[in-house]
Amino acid sequence: MATASAAFVETHQPRLLEELLAFLRIPSISTLPEHAGDVRAAATFVADALRAAGMQNVEIIETAHHPLVYADWMHAPGKPTVLCYGHYDVQPPDPMELWQSPPFAPEIRDGNLYARGSADDKGQMYTHIKAIEAIMATAGTLPVNVKFLVEGEEEIGGKSVAAFVAANPEKLKADVALVSDTSMYAPGLPTLCVGLRGLVYTEVKVKGAARDLHSGIYGGAAPNPIFALIELLSQAKDAGGHIQIPGFYDDVDEPTAVELESWSSLPFNEAEFLAHEVGSTALTGESDRTVLERMWSRPTLEVHGIAGGFTGAGAKTVIPAEATAKVSFRLVPHQDPAKVAAAFDDFLQQRCPAGVTVELRVLSGSPAVVVNPDHPAIRVAANAFAESFGRQTVFDRSGGSIPIVGDFANHLGIPTVLMGFGLPDDGLHSPNEKFAVENYYKGIQTVAHFLELYGAAQPAETPHGEAS
Amino acid sequence: MATASAAFVETHQPRLLEELLAFLRIPSISTLPEHAGDVRAAATFVADALRAAGMQNVEIIETAHHPLVYADWMHAPGKPTVLCYGHYDVQPPDPMELWQSPPFAPEIRDGNLYARGSADDKGQMYTHIKAIEAIMATAGTLPVNVKFLVEGEEEIGGKSVAAFVAANPEKLKADVALVSDTSMYAPGLPTLCVGLRGLVYTEVKVKGAARDLHSGIYGGAAPNPIFALIELLSQAKDAGGHIQIPGFYDDVDEPTAVELESWSSLPFNEAEFLAHEVGSTALTGESDRTVLERMWSRPTLEVHGIAGGFTGAGAKTVIPAEATAKVSFRLVPHQDPAKVAAAFDDFLQQRCPAGVTVELRVLSGSPAVVVNPDHPAIRVAANAFAESFGRQTVFDRSGGSIPIVGDFANHLGIPTVLMGFGLPDDGLHSPNEKFAVENYYKGIQTVAHFLELYGAAQPAETPHGEAS
Repeated sequence: MATASAAFVETHQPRLLEELLAFLRIPSISTLPEHAGDVRAAATFVADALRAAGMQNVEIIETAHHPLVYADWMHAPGKPTVLCYGHYDVQPPDPMELWQSPPFAPEIRDGNLYARGSADDKGQMYTHIKAIEAIMATAGTLPVNVKFLVEGEEEIGGKSVAAFVAANPEKLKADVALVSDTSMYAPGLPTLCVGLRGLVYTEVKVKGAARDLHSGIYGGAAPNPIFALIELLSQAKDAGGHIQIPGFYDDVDEPTAVELESWSSLPFNEAEFLAHEVGSTALTGESDRTVLERMWSRPTLEVHGIAGGFTGAGAKTVIPAEATAKVSFRLVPHQDPAKVAAAFDDFLQQRCPAGVTVELRVLSGSPAVVVNPDHPAIRVAANAFAESFGRQTVFDRSGGSIPIVGDFANHLGIPTVLMGFGLPDDGLHSPNEKFAVENYYKGIQTVAHFLELYGAAQPAETPHGEAS
Repeated sequence: MATASAAFVETHQPRLLEELLAFLRIPSISTLPEHAGDVRAAATFVADALRAAGMQNVEIIETAHHPLVYADWMHAPGKPTVLCYGHYDVQPPDPMELWQSPPFAPEIRDGNLYARGSADDKGQMYTHIKAIEAIMATAGTLPVNVKFLVEGEEEIGGKSVAAFVAANPEKLKADVALVSDTSMYAPGLPTLCVGLRGLVYTEVKVKGAARDLHSGIYGGAAPNPIFALIELLSQAKDAGGHIQIPGFYDDVDEPTAVELESWSSLPFNEAEFLAHEVGSTALTGESDRTVLERMWSRPTLEVHGIAGGFTGAGAKTVIPAEATAKVSFRLVPHQDPAKVAAAFDDFLQQRCPAGVTVELRVLSGSPAVVVNPDHPAIRVAANAFAESFGRQTVFDRSGGSIPIVGDFANHLGIPTVLMGFGLPDDGLHSPNEKFAVENYYKGIQTVAHFLELYGAAQPAETPHGEAS
């Protein structure tokens, strides 16, 4: 690609990389209260970077929890407006001992940048800011109007940004949103994601006796909350991976025949996926569904964490007073988060063993989203991506959840271009998370190219409400 | 009771209490490596106390782990020898936040001494040492020969003392062992325990993918070790409390009809037990067995702890690489610990879900023990206990395990008098563990009285090998 902005990126690679490394050194872990100061420092970093790139009206907006960063540049009359969204917060790095280099001391090995947040989402979000800088530096202006909304609570449910979007449709008015928080289907293969699963995240707590009991004396008669929790959760999914909560599958929407067919033509090799991505001996789940269906278009129940009783080294013969588990559901189109949470609560209450109580706390809930691949902005994005990488763009879905996409559809009436530069083995939420350095540079070029093509092709009259 | 030793205890109550408080201030938590120094300090405390009481040949014996304390006084020719056993180590105090006063800052409230180890077993073991002191101080000699063996690994499986007993039958030669590590059936009711369950303590580890995975991307297809662990353990016991491991009940010995009848005459009130001891709404376990059977003569499976994945505050959408649980079995007479452990391992391996591996580590194993209540030493102990408390002695069993009792039977050929001064609500292994101050004084008097009666009644020709 021979655009001026692309050439700018080539020329300034070392500095562009240095800046990202500085961003990644901030441990902006949104779920841990002791890192609140770091989360704020990351917000300030983003605001400064936006200002330096040429964006205007940069604001750090206070919320009930972590701040939002807003900016705009609205000097392209008659041109469409793109709302760039990303998040500057990251997942906790634990288990720490599995990191080859420290999670917040970025290190480059074999062309990859290893750090927590490198791919999810600091590195990807930063491509948007640097794309603005590249165009501004070379053209002195932008080809479209641009707004930025960057949040710090994406990894903990994104409550503040959801409330802000609902309350400020006029301020955020745009024609399309741009999010870079997904992965390319394979290295070098331009990929636009057109479907995301929703998420209901819960905490299940089982309480038994009023105090911890000596298992020798009371074992055999006293209720054991750990075992009750085990009994309850084991009943929620059968050996074939089918969720047993009454009504759970009622509203599940199946993908279209066309979409299923296109998935079957993707270069998916189960043995390789198992060995190189998952790293285990067998896959699990609904055996009557393909692996891509299980991950993209089927709802799930997962237990993310479980804790109770004595877990130190050695032996303690205790029957603990309580036990808890973190349980989530990935949702597919037409499943209602509130309805799923209520059905799970009913299930737990009805099957709760004698002698214990069970309590469900819903930490967050967001529905699935599907974007229409025929939307003009998506078509332009597909072209820009293809030209930048020299290969035809494919459309896939992701099993992950980006709740803001639903908020943009519902409150702003706009679709979202999910243009991600991650790779399937980036290890999001895992130790040794990485981002390919090449994809960082290519990402900046691709975003810039998308804005350029979109400005050239499109007046500000794109149809609204395409997302669902 | 008007013996001289009993009067000595009355007179010296404040000092006897002060000394025990000092002992309880030492956080001798044997399972936590960071407390190894405290465990050793407790051993030194015991050795000093034995010397001060008038015992001779006091030794701190090094082992592979925590030290043993030995002492003897062998100047009663023609009289029997009593081997006093106890342990100076304690369980971890967690959960700390539930303690009303700090676990290692003993506090007296309403006639109870609150501290970790107050009842299990520092306070009870200390009654033996102080009984020796009381007799020595008043009579200038002892009515029987006495040996002490005090260990620091009882709460973590007691491997060192077991090896020492097996290797030193001559040094430890005695006619009967005395252990105060059980409870009275009810306040004021003298109780000798004549049956103890055995214990197999294990750690189950399930491993899945090579690294933690993002549940959004892989959820539905990637194996989840937490769920696999839940599935496995949930199958090990049915809703009626029956253990499903093939062969598990094969060797289980039922109590005699006489014993069952005596249990049914004990003052047991299920509603009161539930409300005041267990503190829950219902009991669980084998519904076709009485509560006392479930706790005293039936084997159990309990999960003491479980850990895996993210358990901090908030949400993390991870599929962890592994999960572990601490699982124990209480055994009844004729069950073989090695056979039970092997059967559990087979069960886990055979039912292990696809995509994960399961690994069983056996941390300790000891068989159940039953003592014959007609043994002469037990009869003398019952009389001493009855005279000290002014009420007839009852015989019960305990669901707990004291593996050393089996070692004494096997290697020394002697029975054990299980003369405990705890109470059922002492909260062993729980927050707010307590020991009734009155029972501490009465315990010293009763142990002294037992030694006096045993010396008066018994030449050194008690039959051997009564325990089984």
